[in-house]
Amino acid sequence: MGNTRAPPPTTGFPLNRLSFLRDTPAFLSSALASSRVILFNNLHPLTTTTPHYSVHFLPYTTISHLLPNPFTFESEDAYTSAYDSRDPIPPIFVFLGVDEKDLESGFEYQGQGGKSGDTVYKGRPYFAVDVSGNEKAQELALGGVKEGEKTEGPNWRPQRVDMGLPAREAAMVGFGRQVLHWNMNNRFCSSCGSSTISLHAGTKRVCPGTDKALIIEDGDTGNRIVCTVRKGVHNIAFPRTDPTVIMAIVNSAGDKVLLGHNKRFPKGFFSTLAGFCEPCESVEDAVRRETWEESGVRVGRVIIHSTQPWPYPASLMLGCIGQALPDGETIDLGHDPELEEARWFDLGHIRRIIEKAEGGAKDGGGQWVSDGEEVVRIPPPAAIAHQLIAAVARGFVGGVPKI
Amino acid sequence: MGNTRAPPPTTGFPLNRLSFLRDTPAFLSSALASSRVILFNNLHPLTTTTPHYSVHFLPYTTISHLLPNPFTFESEDAYTSAYDSRDPIPPIFVFLGVDEKDLESGFEYQGQGGKSGDTVYKGRPYFAVDVSGNEKAQELALGGVKEGEKTEGPNWRPQRVDMGLPAREAAMVGFGRQVLHWNMNNRFCSSCGSSTISLHAGTKRVCPGTDKALIIEDGDTGNRIVCTVRKGVHNIAFPRTDPTVIMAIVNSAGDKVLLGHNKRFPKGFFSTLAGFCEPCESVEDAVRRETWEESGVRVGRVIIHSTQPWPYPASLMLGCIGQALPDGETIDLGHDPELEEARWFDLGHIRRIIEKAEGGAKDGGGQWVSDGEEVVRIPPPAAIAHQLIAAVARGFVGGVPKI
Ligand SMILES: [Zn+2]
Ligand SMILES: [Zn+2]
Repeated sequence: MGNTRAPPPTTGFPLNRLSFLRDTPAFLSSALASSRVILFNNLHPLTTTTPHYSVHFLPYTTISHLLPNPFTFESEDAYTSAYDSRDPIPPIFVFLGVDEKDLESGFEYQGQGGKSGDTVYKGRPYFAVDVSGNEKAQELALGGVKEGEKTEGPNWRPQRVDMGLPAREAAMVGFGRQVLHWNMNNRFCSSCGSSTISLHAGTKRVCPGTDKALIIEDGDTGNRIVCTVRKGVHNIAFPRTDPTVIMAIVNSAGDKVLLGHNKRFPKGFFSTLAGFCEPCESVEDAVRRETWEESGVRVGRVIIHSTQPWPYPASLMLGCIGQALPDGETIDLGHDPELEEARWFDLGHIRRIIEKAEGGAKDGGGQWVSDGEEVVRIPPPAAIAHQLIAAVARGFVGGVPKI
Repeated sequence: MGNTRAPPPTTGFPLNRLSFLRDTPAFLSSALASSRVILFNNLHPLTTTTPHYSVHFLPYTTISHLLPNPFTFESEDAYTSAYDSRDPIPPIFVFLGVDEKDLESGFEYQGQGGKSGDTVYKGRPYFAVDVSGNEKAQELALGGVKEGEKTEGPNWRPQRVDMGLPAREAAMVGFGRQVLHWNMNNRFCSSCGSSTISLHAGTKRVCPGTDKALIIEDGDTGNRIVCTVRKGVHNIAFPRTDPTVIMAIVNSAGDKVLLGHNKRFPKGFFSTLAGFCEPCESVEDAVRRETWEESGVRVGRVIIHSTQPWPYPASLMLGCIGQALPDGETIDLGHDPELEEARWFDLGHIRRIIEKAEGGAKDGGGQWVSDGEEVVRIPPPAAIAHQLIAAVARGFVGGVPKI
């Protein structure tokens, strides 16, 4: 797995997600009316380059008339029981949360339930919506200019390749993108194959029990095929997130770190090893397994250092630090041939590379010399891989065991 | 979320999963022939109570004749291109891994590729298979006695409710169960609604491009509807794991821990708060969000202490320790009304409860008095919730900040 670019630094998500209000149509409708919206086209958010690279938020009021239907949120029961597969599919407005520091919008919602129904939730609501295929919305978004002709101003720009958004906006874009991607790939029920509908402001999909399109003559029930996920709570109804380990492995003497180079990396670029967690596997075990599979190195102690979401499409990076067993440090790339090279780097060299990377090089990913004559690059400071390498280079695993 | 029973203590998975060999039919076929198999019926593993509670492993050779078809593993290309939706669906043999300490089976596999094609993988292979609906296999499993009539010996026993399996076996059962559950709920492609097929010994499902059942006359291509997930790598092709936070929150003074009681808990039972990670959310943020949503308490510092898989159906418990902000300790259950009660417990009392729980009470979950006259129970030592509570009770967050 590559993690060569800086992921959006979303630790410290800037909005209150108010996840427990996503099932409340009155809340969502009121929030949408006061909201700013991030438009997406094929998962690329609408951003601008002037005056600096940032999301081009649009007030909901300026786009509402462009939607294919007048849009309303409905309760799960109402929407599910009225389901008719012949109806056009309404756009999905993903509720991202409320910026509680921005009281300018005047949006307020009086809590309705629980033991403190008197809580008032305030702030600026944010939503994300996909306008792929909606020509009118796309024209408005680009200001009437054709997409290919634009060089500056609002445009659709892929993320991941281009990571310069302010942290606050990158976090919102990442959340919207991950939820929209999940909705795109879950239009059908994986348990029975029937079409599903989107609920809870984009964060739930259910397999309705009836479809009005099946009622052809009097007496027809409209019942669809029996599906196991219609009763109880099922994880497939909710967005998927893939836990992924990424790890800086030090040798048993504590003076070297294991980094790898895979086929897709630019020449001279080395990063921490990484891979998906397996079913029924602890994070600690996943670090040991992936390190051995990719490099042959056997790891003993493991701790989890910090985490970072990586919504391409749905990873959660679990940043770990581990230490090789004294008799397990031999590199062997022959198990899972994912890496082209894996190497133990001297931590003194790595420290010098890091000082340069953090000392102001603009992209943080420039070229530095290490290990004699060779040019070696590591990931830039915004990447969790860099933070893990920096932690071990600065003595995280020192004389006194910290793990 | 409840985590009231001891999950299988699977840290230190006992098998080498050899995940990179799951796409190699020659390896799988050879491994299956030498394997021990865990049979599942409706996700309940075949276990026995004599001489003690354990998995009732069956050698593959004793069950192979009961399978509906002679069973062979095929390559992804071969199986996908020959797909015919009229064929019976072959049983899924989930490859769990190889026990490298058990060389008795004589199983050996000579590595074929990579830079060290000379590695020989050895040990006892293990598989899991679902025999729901297969009467002959069920009869063999139960030794000819009807299921309801059995009081001892081999039988189908639900996990989660009954957690007494040896750790090594619980880990294998958990892995098998999670993968079988995922296969059950992913028989159809969530992107296009067509049927999918199981590959890589149960750990991958793909949406084939053709179906021989669609070839009716000369010239028919057998092509199915166009599906976006047929090109590239897509996460929906692989088993899903849901990252879940579970956290012991201490107050700012460091002398109390926040525990909750929800409606489904027995009277007097308190545990750590927990909840699913959201899309594009760091673990640290998920701890802060869930704690506030469920209890109103606002958390500052967070570290990740340890992790534990919880395959019911697919959670990965990320055990965290956090500390409340000095002005954020007021409990308010009015946001997300999941808990019936949340309370700050004195760590001195908790320490005494823990000493009793770990001092030999057989189920570790008995009744202990704390807080004056009241009877309070916490989760037993095998649960990660207990380990987190014990860590803070023993001074994890002490005078010198460790987080
Ligand atoms: Zn369904
Ligand atoms: Zn498909």
